[in-house]
Amino acid sequence: MSNTKAYAAQSETSKLAPFSFDRREPRPDDVSIEIDYCGVCHTDIHFTQNDWGNSVFPVVPGHEIIGRVTAVGSDVTRHKVGDVVGVGCMVDSCRTCSACESGLEQYCLEGMTGTYNGEDRHDHTMTFGGYSDKVVVSERFVVKVPEKLDPAAAAPILCAGITTYSPLRHYGVKAGDKVGIIGMGGLGHMGVKFAKALGAEVTIFTRSESKVSEAKKQGADHVIISTDEKQMEDAAQSFDFMLDTVPVPHDLNPYLNALKFDGTHILVGLLQPIEPPVEAGALVGKRRVLAGSLIGGMPETQEVLDFCAEHDITCDIEMLDIQNINDAYERMKKGDVKYRFVIDMASLKNA
Amino acid sequence: MSNTKAYAAQSETSKLAPFSFDRREPRPDDVSIEIDYCGVCHTDIHFTQNDWGNSVFPVVPGHEIIGRVTAVGSDVTRHKVGDVVGVGCMVDSCRTCSACESGLEQYCLEGMTGTYNGEDRHDHTMTFGGYSDKVVVSERFVVKVPEKLDPAAAAPILCAGITTYSPLRHYGVKAGDKVGIIGMGGLGHMGVKFAKALGAEVTIFTRSESKVSEAKKQGADHVIISTDEKQMEDAAQSFDFMLDTVPVPHDLNPYLNALKFDGTHILVGLLQPIEPPVEAGALVGKRRVLAGSLIGGMPETQEVLDFCAEHDITCDIEMLDIQNINDAYERMKKGDVKYRFVIDMASLKNA
Repeated sequence: MSNTKAYAAQSETSKLAPFSFDRREPRPDDVSIEIDYCGVCHTDIHFTQNDWGNSVFPVVPGHEIIGRVTAVGSDVTRHKVGDVVGVGCMVDSCRTCSACESGLEQYCLEGMTGTYNGEDRHDHTMTFGGYSDKVVVSERFVVKVPEKLDPAAAAPILCAGITTYSPLRHYGVKAGDKVGIIGMGGLGHMGVKFAKALGAEVTIFTRSESKVSEAKKQGADHVIISTDEKQMEDAAQSFDFMLDTVPVPHDLNPYLNALKFDGTHILVGLLQPIEPPVEAGALVGKRRVLAGSLIGGMPETQEVLDFCAEHDITCDIEMLDIQNINDAYERMKKGDVKYRFVIDMASLKNA
Repeated sequence: MSNTKAYAAQSETSKLAPFSFDRREPRPDDVSIEIDYCGVCHTDIHFTQNDWGNSVFPVVPGHEIIGRVTAVGSDVTRHKVGDVVGVGCMVDSCRTCSACESGLEQYCLEGMTGTYNGEDRHDHTMTFGGYSDKVVVSERFVVKVPEKLDPAAAAPILCAGITTYSPLRHYGVKAGDKVGIIGMGGLGHMGVKFAKALGAEVTIFTRSESKVSEAKKQGADHVIISTDEKQMEDAAQSFDFMLDTVPVPHDLNPYLNALKFDGTHILVGLLQPIEPPVEAGALVGKRRVLAGSLIGGMPETQEVLDFCAEHDITCDIEMLDIQNINDAYERMKKGDVKYRFVIDMASLKNA
């Protein structure tokens, strides 16, 4: 057992504070990792606040983990001591179902094991995430970080990146396609980079005029103010895909209307009931598709890191000492971050 | 101009009654058809009642038309006098947009011209449908009826048939797939036949125990009582496709839950807002797809007739004299028809 420094929420009303616990002894297929960086995802806030009612406290958040391998179990073949590696949103799955066999562990028929707030399949303890100085993870759920990538800026690729990359690939977005990106946060700004790298013509939908120049800076070819009815109507039947990163209920109908026939609206941020209701006629009348997508499987998580290295894509980040994590959460709630906080885990050692 | 006997609704409150009007002189690309049979679709009722607020009276319904060619225009090459032919839900489109060029005239970017209650693109008169003794239609929108098919029982293939066939083909339903059919009316019972012919394992979802034996008779491998929560939960993650023919708002969530990851729920009957709301998490968490589909294009309408001839598929019909159409509507509103009324248009001649 290995004593581990971390930050944890002890209850849904308490702030994150120093916490220590023991990581398990590495199993034969485990990789021990010293964590250098951990991205901060909005999901972290949801779990610390118990927004979804399923948090088990203490919660040690963090599922955008970058670190270095310090030890490997006897059966490990993919990683070796000293490798720079990443761990994303999951650390285990059943590994034998049709989803796992297809490398789509996130859709494991028995349910994947989350990197935090998940129940370990072997010892039934709760998993603790990357707001900590080390982590022990089965090699299947550890990916290699290409040397070319800045490791800190690569951290959010493990959640924000793969979440937007996976559906664009799954639906075959290609050169010449017209892609709309809805929402310009951590996910949205990665979506723009990927869609552009795939050759698409990219439009950012934003609610305010004030974000237009920032959207252009992100590489968008066009910007549409989604609150401007005329602009939305003028966009009717013009998009092949919408990548919708908005995590709160919003009216999908103006966006569906902006899709061509056979167009696809992909939800990656929303988990709640879809209200106001979707007009079925908007789907039926133009054979449109409303789809969802959840992170990505392990092979594709490796693929997105390699793709980012090849295309010089990283996340725009703001570095943070872990002592400032509670302030960072408050800023995230106001949308005040461009575009992802990443914790410099060296700050934890100094704590 | 050719005087035409018909039945029409003169207002949203009036019953269907005899009506006469002039069909246009055939244009060079037109086919003149003497109508033998016309299927009765629930859409006919919606238009005569002005349920969708867009009816232009008088309304002569009918878009499942089977008849014989009596004359052809000088440019017609596909059809000749004496051919048994069909006309479905549309009689024109722009013919030049990307949808029309792909043979998907139903998604014409300018909007297709409905077989009735549509505005003719040339003379701007309103179109009158198949509750009449003859019709004049551009050859592109006329399909050949294979000799092997009983012409009366083939009529509903032109709407109920193509509407269910098209999405099953578009989404590539194949041998071994598990397909759920929701709703067992005119559309649903055709859906079962097509899904079976494509080699799928078919489950009918019905709300009442009383329909189980009828569902089995239709060829379903399994029946699930959709109002039985336990049966629905037991079906979790087990279907590749749901073909949802229900034309009124209903809760999609129990059906989405019954789809495997990557499963697809296809709406073909619903046009209203989807209420209660769809849980976005059910789409995102399993990469499920909610899709819609509208009838089918002209090449596929020919294909479905040929497919039916090859696989000995026709619609289960109840023949009707047009004088009884108002009673038939009342029975349809109660779901009292197995499974499609077809008007024997000889009755109109005798009127």
